[in-house]
Amino acid sequence: MKKYRLMSPGPTPVPEKVLLRMADTIIHHRTPRFRAVLKGVNDKLKKVFRTDNPVFIFASSGTGAMEASVVNVLSKGDKALVIRGGKFGERFTEICQAYGIEAVNYDLTWGEAADAVVVEKLLKENPGVKAVYATLCETSTGVVNDIKEIAKVVSSTDAVLVVDAISGLSADDLRTDEWGVDVALCGSQKGLMLPPGLAFLSLSPKAEKLVERSDLPKYYFCLKAAMKSYGKDDTPWTPAVSLIMGLDAVLDMLLEEGLDNVLTRHARLAHATREAVKAIGLEIFSRRPSNAVTSVRVPEGLDGAALVKKMRDEQGVTIAGGQAALKGRIFRLAHLGYMDEYDTITAIAGVEMVLSQLGYGVELGKGVARAQELFK
Amino acid sequence: MKKYRLMSPGPTPVPEKVLLRMADTIIHHRTPRFRAVLKGVNDKLKKVFRTDNPVFIFASSGTGAMEASVVNVLSKGDKALVIRGGKFGERFTEICQAYGIEAVNYDLTWGEAADAVVVEKLLKENPGVKAVYATLCETSTGVVNDIKEIAKVVSSTDAVLVVDAISGLSADDLRTDEWGVDVALCGSQKGLMLPPGLAFLSLSPKAEKLVERSDLPKYYFCLKAAMKSYGKDDTPWTPAVSLIMGLDAVLDMLLEEGLDNVLTRHARLAHATREAVKAIGLEIFSRRPSNAVTSVRVPEGLDGAALVKKMRDEQGVTIAGGQAALKGRIFRLAHLGYMDEYDTITAIAGVEMVLSQLGYGVELGKGVARAQELFK
Repeated sequence: MKKYRLMSPGPTPVPEKVLLRMADTIIHHRTPRFRAVLKGVNDKLKKVFRTDNPVFIFASSGTGAMEASVVNVLSKGDKALVIRGGKFGERFTEICQAYGIEAVNYDLTWGEAADAVVVEKLLKENPGVKAVYATLCETSTGVVNDIKEIAKVVSSTDAVLVVDAISGLSADDLRTDEWGVDVALCGSQKGLMLPPGLAFLSLSPKAEKLVERSDLPKYYFCLKAAMKSYGKDDTPWTPAVSLIMGLDAVLDMLLEEGLDNVLTRHARLAHATREAVKAIGLEIFSRRPSNAVTSVRVPEGLDGAALVKKMRDEQGVTIAGGQAALKGRIFRLAHLGYMDEYDTITAIAGVEMVLSQLGYGVELGKGVARAQELFK
Repeated sequence: MKKYRLMSPGPTPVPEKVLLRMADTIIHHRTPRFRAVLKGVNDKLKKVFRTDNPVFIFASSGTGAMEASVVNVLSKGDKALVIRGGKFGERFTEICQAYGIEAVNYDLTWGEAADAVVVEKLLKENPGVKAVYATLCETSTGVVNDIKEIAKVVSSTDAVLVVDAISGLSADDLRTDEWGVDVALCGSQKGLMLPPGLAFLSLSPKAEKLVERSDLPKYYFCLKAAMKSYGKDDTPWTPAVSLIMGLDAVLDMLLEEGLDNVLTRHARLAHATREAVKAIGLEIFSRRPSNAVTSVRVPEGLDGAALVKKMRDEQGVTIAGGQAALKGRIFRLAHLGYMDEYDTITAIAGVEMVLSQLGYGVELGKGVARAQELFK
């Protein structure tokens, strides 16, 4: 018997009581009973997104919300500035291209964070840019971008700032309204501790003006339709009822713990993970590490893919390898969502044992001890 | 205490063992373990869709699959023929319009079924039509269209036939390959007995050719991306893991019962519902009634909305009222998905009691007795 342990940056483990809430009798969505749940969920989502603006819910993966942030905010002939520090930043450009939008790409070396000064310069050089697309936690590299500084730059222009906070929300700080983020995106299967299947999009009044004039084609992800239903505690299309019941439960959990405490918990686990990794003698890959996921450079001579595979198949611990150009070059340990100190200790203990099996010179327990020191 | 009984044409009740399957530990989707589940699901979906072609799964409501069937099959300047016998037929035209596609509308009086001869005539009059959009069960009226005859007409032309079988699949017969249906759509929360959140689309080689040349913009619902992943038992975006686990379980249930038996069960419940309704003295609204849902005309002088509300709030039985122009004029009793004889008896018994409360002259037990006769 090996327990199944999910330590990837999405999906993340779902608390048992949330699984059971989703296993309750399915109710009809066009009823006062469901609308009451949805109203509560809508109110609580605002708190978790730290915004007074509406947060719309889609039945889709996070990519659906990314598409919604392009097809509703932009119009034919508009330009977008896309900050690309990894696979998910690049996805915004792909979506822009699919809809005939010219994307000005700010390409970072993977592992580096965006520089607000460069964003400012690019906005000056490209006065036609209507929206800047940024990533809070770039899941593929484990970098958290300085959204606060980027928002300072963007909010002083006519452009709106769209932030992919899909894997970052509730792990990395995001002050949507305070910082001036116009559109924040999220997915259910990350810090929100749910199965995949829901995506979220918050909308500022500044961005709403662009939505009103947007002439890109859309239907399922149409925000005007979503806005019309939102005021009636309804959704334009059949919502994913069971996932929304789970959402109701996880939002209660997050608000009960307190958002600041949730962030502190993630920061604590992330810090301990990074320190433990360094104590083992490995190097953190990202220059500005996120509190959602820690990317570790695979040391010279070690088979990164084998490490991830052994962790999963032999230890029962599902971590993530590198994607695209980083395949085999990094591995990623998530401390995201329903995670505590002993989950971190487990991850580190597993990595140590597998490194040892792979013949990498590691003193067993050294990383674990470093985490314990920080946790005690 | 009142039990909650869901007798609407979607969502429908989810079997307890399926709810529990979905409440199992969430696993990562990019793993051999998940891919094995997905491969099994893909194979079983083909059987339920009665096709040898791939059936793609989206994390979305059924409307997402409808959009996918427009943006992937059609190209700029193409024309579509849309058979519109209710709210869901009309949705195809709305989607076409959103993407700049000219829709030739074949408008039926609500409650009537489409005539294949008219489809043939319209195709001759509009030689530029690349796709015909039809509905198996038009949920808003309870009509099942004669897809077999329509397919005969369409398959002898260059146009492809897209069938919205969202609420019809597994209740009303659909022989996708045998009849020559190119694209069949479904949603999870109907005959498939799951919560809402998944949508399905089958694709024939004839339709695939149109997909290859399609130049309408799309990203999340891009079938080329889905096709690329399908061969690797993968999905382009994060799949709704828990719903797919549930799907695995419901497909086993359907195949274990046998598709023909599933159809026979629905036909039996539908027949008994219609006969019981007539025994009560009410009239069936639809001219060609579906086996998924029975639409009943609200008799003169009776408050249709009050009937639905009393059924829900006092009897605990959630049935559906009329939509759009049919608001207050019909009520709809579903016998769709996880339903048996006693569910039908319950629905009829509830309707009789509420009719009696509303002062409609009904002999209690008359409709129930008629159903019993047919079931015994």
